[in-house]
Amino acid sequence: MEKIFTLDQIKQVLPQIDPIEAIEQGFVAYSQGRVVVPPVGEMIFDHPPGDVHIKYGFIKNDDYYVIKIASGFYENVKLKLPSNNGMMLLFDRKTGQLTAVLLDEGYLTDVRTAAAGAVAAKYLAPKKVQRIGIFGAGIQGRLQLQYLIPEIDCHDVIVWSRSQKTLDNYKKTTEHFGLNIQTTLDARAVAASCNLIVTATPAQRPLISADHIQKGTHITAIGSDTPEKIELDPALLQKADLVVADSIEQSLLRGEIYQAIKAGCLHRDNLLELGNVIADKQLQRKSDDQITIADLTGVAVQDIQISKAVYKALTA
Amino acid sequence: MEKIFTLDQIKQVLPQIDPIEAIEQGFVAYSQGRVVVPPVGEMIFDHPPGDVHIKYGFIKNDDYYVIKIASGFYENVKLKLPSNNGMMLLFDRKTGQLTAVLLDEGYLTDVRTAAAGAVAAKYLAPKKVQRIGIFGAGIQGRLQLQYLIPEIDCHDVIVWSRSQKTLDNYKKTTEHFGLNIQTTLDARAVAASCNLIVTATPAQRPLISADHIQKGTHITAIGSDTPEKIELDPALLQKADLVVADSIEQSLLRGEIYQAIKAGCLHRDNLLELGNVIADKQLQRKSDDQITIADLTGVAVQDIQISKAVYKALTA
Repeated sequence: MEKIFTLDQIKQVLPQIDPIEAIEQGFVAYSQGRVVVPPVGEMIFDHPPGDVHIKYGFIKNDDYYVIKIASGFYENVKLKLPSNNGMMLLFDRKTGQLTAVLLDEGYLTDVRTAAAGAVAAKYLAPKKVQRIGIFGAGIQGRLQLQYLIPEIDCHDVIVWSRSQKTLDNYKKTTEHFGLNIQTTLDARAVAASCNLIVTATPAQRPLISADHIQKGTHITAIGSDTPEKIELDPALLQKADLVVADSIEQSLLRGEIYQAIKAGCLHRDNLLELGNVIADKQLQRKSDDQITIADLTGVAVQDIQISKAVYKALTA
Repeated sequence: MEKIFTLDQIKQVLPQIDPIEAIEQGFVAYSQGRVVVPPVGEMIFDHPPGDVHIKYGFIKNDDYYVIKIASGFYENVKLKLPSNNGMMLLFDRKTGQLTAVLLDEGYLTDVRTAAAGAVAAKYLAPKKVQRIGIFGAGIQGRLQLQYLIPEIDCHDVIVWSRSQKTLDNYKKTTEHFGLNIQTTLDARAVAASCNLIVTATPAQRPLISADHIQKGTHITAIGSDTPEKIELDPALLQKADLVVADSIEQSLLRGEIYQAIKAGCLHRDNLLELGNVIADKQLQRKSDDQITIADLTGVAVQDIQISKAVYKALTA
């Protein structure tokens, strides 16, 4: 059973991999049309409610194809089980033989999402970041910070959440990063002092209004991956100089971009795709005054890339 | 890693389960509309050619959902690897927790297909079977016989294939069943002497013409699961008194029924579904003179049922 790897084994090798590079290359391949990602498979349950998604695909001429199974059962808390769960399966693209089962319990999805946030900041943040603002003090809010830090030269952070208890816990679990971490219940305090902001909440109403954002700010919106969720004022996308999607196709159906287009604040012709931004300097931020927004809804190529990188480290 | 089971472990417990009962109940649930089977996921590769299918679903109010991954890479023979491969994953329907990984390498698909053949014969074969005819001497031809025998009181068998070598090998590997097994290269010899026939070949042209089949014969067609493959003369489906599909919906798109409708030999209003035939005596064979045909294209509920039964035995 040398093909099966547990979450513990996966966590052990994570420090050895460079997810930023893996995810970057994935986005570039995706925007160049070199990734095959069929429609997501879905099962919806009630009593108790839950949903299961099967995401799968491959990069053309690559060695593997990847199938990810992810679930969310929100009443699991009652049973003291995690709501989210998942696994990633790697197969040999030439023979169909199973290469590896990564029993990551959904953790690699969190990691690849955080790495995508860091990639967006790497290519879109202003040169000098005064302070990093994080909306959301959950696991994704923590991981976003963890993966941002090596890419961004800034040690001042302010974190917003609705609950002081969550904020205290956030501070406790991130203080070993060696940062100056402030917390706040006031969203405006983040907008007023930060020029790099990451939103990682399940909000269904905008957290920040367009007026509060300073010139020269980059915002990465992570939280909304459905047609219902929204973190940014649609007028903010109208105000932005650059609006970048991880997948333009997907962003037309869900997330901030979907919401802003629906509100008449944005036209699809004005969208850029992250893989193209990475590959072409001309598409990146042009001055320290521009407002840039990256809307990340999550693309299967991230799963492909993270699972390959982890598997390589596990068998090195 | 007590959740992971290998093909060896699975084969060890197979004699302890009753796949006939499991598959039967599955077909009944399916025909009663109690099974949720979303569209099959698919990836197609070239250089070397291969295909991957993801079949998944659940029976309403059941304890599990099941995801099956199956692949066919036809140049694997060059590498001395099996062409077909696969695994089945069981999850807890209430929490999304992984229950079991059955690394069956595609074998349980063969077993559930053979068990479906036995179920069809159990409900449709004439009371007295003179001789069993098997078309196709591959693994499915062998398994069909193995699962038929406990259901059908008959020890005379004739097997057809295009190759005498394959037939000799078939005879060698089935003689321990305690049967009188004849082999033939002449398809008419099967039609002339058998009133229970199973076709399990990848034929793309009919193996038997309508004229050769005797009154009172039941035929189960297993081989065709695509729009291209065909084993039975479309006129034979016209001649038949009962034509039964495992899934009517699916049979309109592939298999013998699809071919016969396309040829103008059959109307969809005249189709029965196997789960309804099992549940309702009125829909079964009415006399020993009738010609009956079951066209099995394979339904995900079979995967659900076989994996649950195997898992239960593995953990008993």
